[in-house]
Amino acid sequence: MKFIPGSITAPKGFLESGIHCGIRKNKTKRDLALIMSEGKASAAAVYTTNRVKGAPLLVTRQNIEDGYARAVICNSGNANTCNADGEQVATEMCELVAQATGISAKDVIVASTGVIGQRLDITPIKNSMSKLVEDLSKETSNAAEAIMTTDTVKKEVAVEFELSGVTCRMGAIAKGSGMIHPNMATMLIFITCDVAISPEMLQKALSEDIVDTFNMISVDGDTSTNDMVSILANGYAGNPYIDCENKDFTAFKNALKAVTTYMCRQIAADGEGATKLLVCEVKNAADKEGARKIAKSVICSSLFKAAMFGADANWGRVLCAIGYSGVDVDVNKIDVSFCSNYGEILVCENGAGLDFSEEIAKKILSEEEVITFINLKSGTEKATAWGCDLTYDYVKINGDYRT
Amino acid sequence: MKFIPGSITAPKGFLESGIHCGIRKNKTKRDLALIMSEGKASAAAVYTTNRVKGAPLLVTRQNIEDGYARAVICNSGNANTCNADGEQVATEMCELVAQATGISAKDVIVASTGVIGQRLDITPIKNSMSKLVEDLSKETSNAAEAIMTTDTVKKEVAVEFELSGVTCRMGAIAKGSGMIHPNMATMLIFITCDVAISPEMLQKALSEDIVDTFNMISVDGDTSTNDMVSILANGYAGNPYIDCENKDFTAFKNALKAVTTYMCRQIAADGEGATKLLVCEVKNAADKEGARKIAKSVICSSLFKAAMFGADANWGRVLCAIGYSGVDVDVNKIDVSFCSNYGEILVCENGAGLDFSEEIAKKILSEEEVITFINLKSGTEKATAWGCDLTYDYVKINGDYRT
Repeated sequence: MKFIPGSITAPKGFLESGIHCGIRKNKTKRDLALIMSEGKASAAAVYTTNRVKGAPLLVTRQNIEDGYARAVICNSGNANTCNADGEQVATEMCELVAQATGISAKDVIVASTGVIGQRLDITPIKNSMSKLVEDLSKETSNAAEAIMTTDTVKKEVAVEFELSGVTCRMGAIAKGSGMIHPNMATMLIFITCDVAISPEMLQKALSEDIVDTFNMISVDGDTSTNDMVSILANGYAGNPYIDCENKDFTAFKNALKAVTTYMCRQIAADGEGATKLLVCEVKNAADKEGARKIAKSVICSSLFKAAMFGADANWGRVLCAIGYSGVDVDVNKIDVSFCSNYGEILVCENGAGLDFSEEIAKKILSEEEVITFINLKSGTEKATAWGCDLTYDYVKINGDYRT
Repeated sequence: MKFIPGSITAPKGFLESGIHCGIRKNKTKRDLALIMSEGKASAAAVYTTNRVKGAPLLVTRQNIEDGYARAVICNSGNANTCNADGEQVATEMCELVAQATGISAKDVIVASTGVIGQRLDITPIKNSMSKLVEDLSKETSNAAEAIMTTDTVKKEVAVEFELSGVTCRMGAIAKGSGMIHPNMATMLIFITCDVAISPEMLQKALSEDIVDTFNMISVDGDTSTNDMVSILANGYAGNPYIDCENKDFTAFKNALKAVTTYMCRQIAADGEGATKLLVCEVKNAADKEGARKIAKSVICSSLFKAAMFGADANWGRVLCAIGYSGVDVDVNKIDVSFCSNYGEILVCENGAGLDFSEEIAKKILSEEEVITFINLKSGTEKATAWGCDLTYDYVKINGDYRT
């Protein structure tokens, strides 16, 4: 398995486009994306667990009930959520794609991201559909830009791997930044691949993957109404069809994990207002779920996040967050260290503070990626969570998001 | 029941003092507080649910196991938590009070607040104990100042009420500000009263009270290791002894609720970096616990808090937080309005947005206290939660707390 240039069009048989259609006022910002598979593709998705669900998710769920899809349409600038006509507008978006491309409206995955509770006007989407379809290309990477909201960088990745000696490819784009605290699903991630795999096995791979990837990131503790991860697999690589748990399925899952882990790091590092990526690695836990809960509790703590912004080695806040995680731990066994490219420093051993150099700690915490290692010394399980620091800019971005 | 001037010495038979002993470097900041009852008092307390518990809490729990106490000692500047010698130091603090006042060390409630994981040096406390005891007075209010950390205002309150025709008084001081997200207990609150009541009924009143008061506030979602609420009742008012659930017990609980609710508002309004008090009132819920969860989910949302800081009527974030609260609600029935001294504005009806004046909304949200009303139209239960906005100053205060 290796990382390769490109993203969603790296797999065979996929095209993409992204344009400014007019949902956003800023004419330099693309706001409408389309991803097309040249042939029918197995499709799977996971959705937010928020009871308030964006209308596009409800329509998507119906459309891929049969396990197949051909296209993904996504707009930014408006979430199409909490609107009386939301489902109607989302359905119309699918129908417009169908009319312009000749596929069935039932083969379209639809997604929206942006402000909640403002009607999404279909007119700019309708008026721009022919342009969006004309622009479809293997060479561009405009869709990744069109789905961005407060993201500061495009998030894309592609990998190449072998299944039974056949070279396959997988690519993905994502949008993240705020309202990021997925639970059994996540922000918007669109994955494509040219693998031949049944819809059932595709869904199984995706559902199992997110437990240790997207469900382990948090920017602000707010689980969005519009979170979705979708994956299309069109079989164009020509590998032996995967319809059971065999070695190819395992290899496929490994490739998927490489793509999703990469995206987790990208999304967390570009969290709203973030100046650094925070990684929390818990090891030697008594059980896996406990390790996950502790890693996530630390990464979600506002006090810990603000301390990391200030490069302040206030490890007491790590202990505090472990303590309220709800996990039964022996506090007197816990070691904590901070690590970055600059080096590593042990700050707490067996639950009590150590004398350490504040100067070195400050340098370690001033790097762009900081890892907090937590050793529970109570078993063999481990987990990783990703997040970012809490900064002035997070407050600024969210104090006046709508204007 | 009426509010009266003063705080913990308003009830008969209580004295207080607060001095600078030297735990803090800043010599103008008092850092050691003492509260004394002239006679034995029924005592009750509730503690943090954080598994990492401050050493003082462990000592206090043992000391009031018999249901009685005479004094409270509390220092700020150091939490005495995650230290190898923590319990020994907390026990010594009680012994120093006992030696200087002639009471038993087992009749002392001890508490500490400040940074976690740094050894608390007993020396300045030992050297200042005689001064602390000498300063005991009914006229001062220095203890409230001595327990402050990042608080910007002293938090104190007193009420007068009748039990079987006998006038009784209750007073309290509190420290709040950061790491405020109590769960079955809370930050530091010391309550005194001159009521005659059994330790069992006192504990029952306190334990029942916090469910709808201190457990319903959140500043930053971080449950502290050192949260404690304690109450002393010395019987000096001379009311008929309360040892069962009668009308006096109900009147006592009402007075307690007035005191604790007042403190909840004070603590939330003075949350770290806060510019305004946020109140969330949920009504017509199917059940009480669901109402509580929804109110707390909204008040804890970083996105909602940041929007309130910016006076941005982004009600979609309210719906979003209701949606991930874990409560089974019919989203299509929900009404949301914002209210302050300036007026009230309905922004969402039956789960969908309304056309409203952004200008008026901005004015409503610019006041010092903003109430978010959520009408679920699904039953008769209600709940209130208190919090504050998320601001640049929260980040500033917590990015460099230790220096």
